[in-house]
Parts: sequence; structure tokens; C-alpha cells
Amino acid sequence: MRVLVWAENCESIYPDGVHGAIASTLSEDLPQVRAATATLEDPGCGLDDSVLEQTDVLVWWAHVRNEEVPDDVAQRVYERVLRGMGLIVLHSGGEAKVFRRLMGTSCTWGWREPGERELIWTVCPSHPIAQDVGDVIELTEHQMYGEYFDIPRPDDLVFISSSPGGEVFRSGCTFTRGNGRIFYFSAGHETLPIFHHPQIRKVMANAVTWAYPVNGFVKARGFRRMDPV
Amino acid sequence: MRVLVWAENCESIYPDGVHGAIASTLSEDLPQVRAATATLEDPGCGLDDSVLEQTDVLVWWAHVRNEEVPDDVAQRVYERVLRGMGLIVLHSGGEAKVFRRLMGTSCTWGWREPGERELIWTVCPSHPIAQDVGDVIELTEHQMYGEYFDIPRPDDLVFISSSPGGEVFRSGCTFTRGNGRIFYFSAGHETLPIFHHPQIRKVMANAVTWAYPVNGFVKARGFRRMDPV
Amino acid sequence: MRVLVWAENCESIYPDGVHGAIASTLSEDLPQVRAATATLEDPGCGLDDSVLEQTDVLVWWAHVRNEEVPDDVAQRVYERVLRGMGLIVLHSGGEAKVFRRLMGTSCTWGWREPGERELIWTVCPSHPIAQDVGDVIELTEHQMYGEYFDIPRPDDLVFISSSPGGEVFRSGCTFTRGNGRIFYFSAGHETLPIFHHPQIRKVMANAVTWAYPVNGFVKARGFRRMDPV
Amino acid sequence: MRVLVWAENCESIYPDGVHGAIASTLSEDLPQVRAATATLEDPGCGLDDSVLEQTDVLVWWAHVRNEEVPDDVAQRVYERVLRGMGLIVLHSGGEAKVFRRLMGTSCTWGWREPGERELIWTVCPSHPIAQDVGDVIELTEHQMYGEYFDIPRPDDLVFISSSPGGEVFRSGCTFTRGNGRIFYFSAGHETLPIFHHPQIRKVMANAVTWAYPVNGFVKARGFRRMDPV
Repeated sequence: MRVLVWAENCESIYPDGVHGAIASTLSEDLPQVRAATATLEDPGCGLDDSVLEQTDVLVWWAHVRNEEVPDDVAQRVYERVLRGMGLIVLHSGGEAKVFRRLMGTSCTWGWREPGERELIWTVCPSHPIAQDVGDVIELTEHQMYGEYFDIPRPDDLVFISSSPGGEVFRSGCTFTRGNGRIFYFSAGHETLPIFHHPQIRKVMANAVTWAYPVNGFVKARGFRRMDPV
Repeated sequence: MRVLVWAENCESIYPDGVHGAIASTLSEDLPQVRAATATLEDPGCGLDDSVLEQTDVLVWWAHVRNEEVPDDVAQRVYERVLRGMGLIVLHSGGEAKVFRRLMGTSCTWGWREPGERELIWTVCPSHPIAQDVGDVIELTEHQMYGEYFDIPRPDDLVFISSSPGGEVFRSGCTFTRGNGRIFYFSAGHETLPIFHHPQIRKVMANAVTWAYPVNGFVKARGFRRMDPV
Repeated sequence: MRVLVWAENCESIYPDGVHGAIASTLSEDLPQVRAATATLEDPGCGLDDSVLEQTDVLVWWAHVRNEEVPDDVAQRVYERVLRGMGLIVLHSGGEAKVFRRLMGTSCTWGWREPGERELIWTVCPSHPIAQDVGDVIELTEHQMYGEYFDIPRPDDLVFISSSPGGEVFRSGCTFTRGNGRIFYFSAGHETLPIFHHPQIRKVMANAVTWAYPVNGFVKARGFRRMDPV
Repeated sequence: MRVLVWAENCESIYPDGVHGAIASTLSEDLPQVRAATATLEDPGCGLDDSVLEQTDVLVWWAHVRNEEVPDDVAQRVYERVLRGMGLIVLHSGGEAKVFRRLMGTSCTWGWREPGERELIWTVCPSHPIAQDVGDVIELTEHQMYGEYFDIPRPDDLVFISSSPGGEVFRSGCTFTRGNGRIFYFSAGHETLPIFHHPQIRKVMANAVTWAYPVNGFVKARGFRRMDPV
């Protein structure tokens, strides 16, 4: 399972960056994973066709520089997802060009500065991404994201988050586009050790496993004249 | 639009009972509605076939006596819903035999004694039931209902509620069964004036309008040998 | 209800074009409709902001020239849909830039030259778009469209079509994007009098009525800092 | 993976019954499967609690004797599904008490005597149940099932079938109820060697694998007072 973790490479509490921290925990938690990283600073964002063709699941974390990703890079990732690549979109990655392109909506939402407790409730306990996660994840401190979150109806709504102020957020949502499986997860802010939280690690490992293209990659079919069967 | 409001007829803050209060506000808010009421105490629960056949939308409110509804009454209501009758299930009506029969699940959830603030967030603003409701409804005091709520995936998740303790609840959900439209809404506790709240009244009026069987009532089709078209 | 019917303006059996025929039948069948038309040949495709701002529901019919619609026109229509405008996409309009942008997929499918009988089966009889349509629509001659149709999971699958060769097609699908309601319908080929067929007219009238933005138009909200409630 | 194949034990082309044929092919195709069988003739239908507690996935095939299954047997199976047991419902098993109980609808459909060609089209190629199945399965002879099929909206519609007469049928549908995953598949008639067809075998193996309760079995939670988190 070839996983590529992409991030903006902003300042964070993680010595090797958010991408480094995620790649490292995924490698520890899933022996079958070979994790690589790429960032906005790499040539072509580190997302050339040759790289994407060696990627089964792409993890996409972003903070505030989503608009700096060139359109053709977003398009390449988009096309690879339709062919089968799994995509895990994290935190402000919900604003990413490729995610908006896949959703067909604005993907905007509300937020506040970090510092409030977040509870992440499992509302689809039978889903593979919820396996061994438990009823609720407590983040003692996180950044509040709140509705209305402008996404299409998810295939499965797996998690709903709340803040002490009473805001709610559909924080864990699955989608299918073409042959690709997509999971949006609102964790985790770069100034807080969210990706070290044991239950968040479990969600991440489950998500990557779930998004793996079990049916392989398909070629684009295009419009086609059909012969009788 | 013939609406029947059914309730347990327990003690409440409403002089004419919960059913009376709902019937009265619906009649005020929707000129086209002719609202009647029925309760658990009525013969046959007030839900004879002759009554159901004159009902376009049934509003079902319950508190703690769901098990006292006879099986054959639940079955009659169930069959009328499949034929096309709209069904609005309120509060502990989620425990009702007929709702569980329509859902195919246990429909259980968590709760606490009343007394906490509830925020009800609109997460599907384009839905007719959300029309003119706004981003959020504040109930200064209500009874907390919390996940996991054991229902099938809703057709549309319209509202999500939160409590100050951080619990969340899928408090407004639509379903289709046969020709019937169903809306579950977790409002409102009988000791609090929830059904007088202007936004709750708006939701109720929208829900009844939405659940009306625009395509009419159908006969049960059964298993049928098909002739070639 | 301000309806704009857009088409490519190709050769067809309809003296006033496909757009003219649809606009005319909608006006006859729905007294509340004020129907206008626009085509690919009009300046700005007849889809300037001033036009879109006066449009509640846009009907989009296309044949083979989807790529000739400029990107900025597709973008304008896309943004208007997210704000609330209903969109009815017909026939090869499934290939339109704006439809693919809203779906987030390739929207490709299979087809054959016209000349085969098509049966269109109602599989969601409770849906407003199926009102008074009946169990099945027979088109004695039409163009076969076949699966795999690369769209996201529809909100509701209302119609499935078949050809004598045994191909099937999800020919009537609803979607929601932002505040906008979208209905894809695979009818009707320009060399056959499909839009005069009484049941197709019924579907068209139902679809326009259903797609009307009952909750009005919303402004784009963007990312927003949330104050506590 | 403990699989129990249940059937009516009617006359069929299979020397060991439909149940025997399915159990045998599943054992061949999935090394991890330990398959047992039970029939309507067994005491308690072979579905005592002690048996169900040792079952991860139940395959249910029926012909015409669905009403002979006692209510308490259907109820036991129903409760085990909500706790996590996978359920594969085949052919006229769509009429089974337990399936109707899980769906909340009548589950009726149309049919003709066997003898027509059936094409089964994959309309969700990314689904695990469609893995390596291909675009279409041809059954040179089968029993036509046709819409309207009275089921709730499926989680995923994986297959659609057609007959030469032009009827269509949602022949492969997934559902979730509580912790249990359910797959309805309209194959295969007992007088035709459907379960020996290589692609049908692939669907069966995929379905059993998909329905396995990866998240384990849960206890019924009931209504519960929630302590603050």
C-alpha cells in the first residue's frame, strides 16, 4: 500500500512537519504501508504523474495556502482519484482545489481560533473507518469548525463534532467519485498534537485502509459507442 | 390537507395537551390544514381504518407509553404510510412501534433529564423543511438527546442538535418508505413550551407540507406476474 | 417561475428548435411559467449574469458542441446553481462543462445511433418528478444510452431506462449542490418528437416545478469566523 | 469467517440443494470460509440462538415458502443482524419476513416464469462487491424480476438487470441496519445453474467478504441515560 502524505509544510509542533508526523504514524500503525511525503515547496508540488502513478492513497493536509497549488496539479490529482486513487482530505484541505473539484460545491464552512475542546462522535459505528474508535473522541483542545459546511450529501456520515459553544460539524464524511474513495476528516490543527492522539491515529489508519483501491485503477472510458451484448 | 395529531395525552404545560397545541398551531400557520387530534386513550387509539383513510399526514408525539399502542394499531398506521400517508414523528415518538417498524432498526438513543440549552443547526439549507428556518434554532431549555441514534442512513439529514455538554444528535431526518414520506424531529419535551417557539412552528408547518402525498395514495401492489410491455 | 431553456440550436425536427419546443410545452403545461430561450449562438451564450439573475430554473439541452461553451459561461451557471437556481440537464447535456463541474466526475457513458425502443421505468414512484407519470414510459424510437454512467451516487434515482438489446441506464437522477437542485434526464434526441410525448411533457413539468428554489437564492458565504451563539 | 447458508430445500438442479451448492462454491472460492447449511425443515429452521451466535454471515435463499418461517425465528435473525451479522438475501428471499422487517417496506416486485436472458450491469464499479466482476454478467436463461421493487433507497445500488422484454430491476443493493450489512441479490433460480456461473460466484464471494462484521458484534444498547463526557 503506497501512501503519499502531502502538506503545506507550514510551521507546526511536529519536528518533521505535519506530513512527516502522519507518514511516520501510518508506517508504525500499518505494516503494509510504504509512506512517502511531498509538500507545496517541492517542484510540481511533488505530485508529478510519475509520483501519482505510484500512489494508492493520497493524504492531503492544508492550512492556508490552498490557492497556491497550480490548477494543473489539482487536475492531475483529480484525474488520478477518478481512476481509483484513495484520497484522505484533512483539516483545511477541505478548501483545496482538488477537493472542491471533486465535490462540485464551494466547500466553505465556519471556524474560530484554536483553543476549545472538541468531541467527535461516531454516528456510523458499522463503518470500517470507525473500527475500534469507540463512541467518542475527546480532543481537549482543537480548532472549532462549524456548519453550514457546503458539501454534497456524503455517502456515509461517520463522525459529527461539537464545540463547548454548541457548534456542530460533519467532521468525518465519505464520498465516491468515479473509481476513487474520498474521506474528509476535519482533524487536525498544526499547533496541537492531534495526530499523536491514539484514536485519531486509529481513524487515520482505518481511513487509509478503507480508501485503498481494492478494485484497482481503471482507464478513463470516455464516451463510447456500445456494441450489442 | 387533512392532518391528524396523535399523542399520549400525558401531563404537559399545554392546556389542551401536546396534541391540542400542535393541532392549533398548525391550523393557524397553514390555512389549508384541517387538523384533528387523537390520543392513546381513545378507542383503538383513535386510529381506526376509517380515520386513517381520511388522513393525509399523521403527526405522532410520544413520551413513555409507546409499548401500550397495540400491535394491530401500529400495523394499520404502517400500512397507511406505505400507501402514501406522511408521518411526522416527534420526540420520544422515535421509540414508537410504527417508527421502528418503518426503520427496521432499534431506534434507541441516549438522553438526560430536561434543563439544558439545545442548538439545532440546519445542515441541509436547500431542503423544503428548512425553508425560512435560518442557520440555527436556540432552545434555551430542552431535553438532551444524544448519539448513537440507531436509525438507517436518512434520505436527508436536515438538522443536527448539540447540548452544552458536547453531545450531538441527528435531530431532523427524512426517510421514504413505499409511497410515504417520514420526518423524524426530536423536539419537543412536554414540560417546556417548545411547540410555541416560532422557528419550531416553522419547521412543523414545513414538515407537514413536505410530507403531504403529492402523488396520492397507492394500493398495495403485492407480487405480480408481469406481462410484456 | 422564470424558466430559461438553453440549447445548441442544431438541426432538429422542431421548427423553433429544441429550445423553442421545450419552452413552448412548458408554458402550455405550467401556467405559472414564463419561459425564455437562449442558444450557443447568442452573445455570451445568452447566459450573462443579468440573464441568470432573472432565472429560477435553467433547462440545458445539448447535442455535440458542449466544448464550445466558454469556461467563464460554465462557471457563471455553476455559481448560480450553488446559490439556488434549479438545473434540468437533458440528453447529451450530461457532457456539459457545467454538469461535470457540479458532479465532480467525468459523466461519460455509452450510446448507439438512434432507432431503438426505450422503456423508462419509474423506480421512485413517491418522487414529485414521477407524479402522474405512471409505471413506465414507452418511447417507440430513441437513442440508446447505456451504463456505466460515471456520476456520483444520485440523491434519488427516479427513472431507469432499457433498450431491446438489454442495455440499462440511470436515465433520471436528482442531485443537490449548495442551494441548487439538479435533475438529469436522458431524453430526448433532436430527430425524434420526444418532447411532444405526453409522459415526457409531464416529467418536464414536474422537474421544473421540483427544481424551483423554494428556499430562495443565497449569497455565497465563504469561509467565515463564527461568533458564539 | 463462519458462513451459514440457509434455504427452503425445494427441488432444484443441485444434488445437494441450493444451500449445498452455495456452501460448496463459497468454501472453494474463499479459503477462510467455514460454511454450514440449514433449511426450513430443520428444527427451529436450523436457526437457534446457539447457531446464530456462531455465524458471521448468513446467506438466505428462498423460493415460495417464506411465510412458513415462524415469526420468532425471523425475529432472532433480525436481532443478530442489528448486532453485526452480515446478511446476503438471494432471489425470492426478498420476500422473507426478516428482510421485510429490516427494510420496513413490502419488498414486493414483478416477475415472469423463467426462460429469458438476463443482463446484470455493474453501475457501481468501485464497490467491493463488484471487484473483478466486469461490466456485465450474462445469464443466458433466468427468471425475470421487474420494477417497481418496493425497497427503501439502497446505500449503494451495485447492479441493475434487464430482460429482453425491456423490464429492469435493481438486482444488487446494499443496506446497513444497526451494525449489520445487508446485500440483496436477485440471482438465482433453482432450475438453472446460476450459482455455477463464474461471475455469479465472484459476486457471492465478494458479498460474503464485504458483509463480514469487521467491527465485530455489539450488544443492544437500548435507551440510556448519558453522563456528561
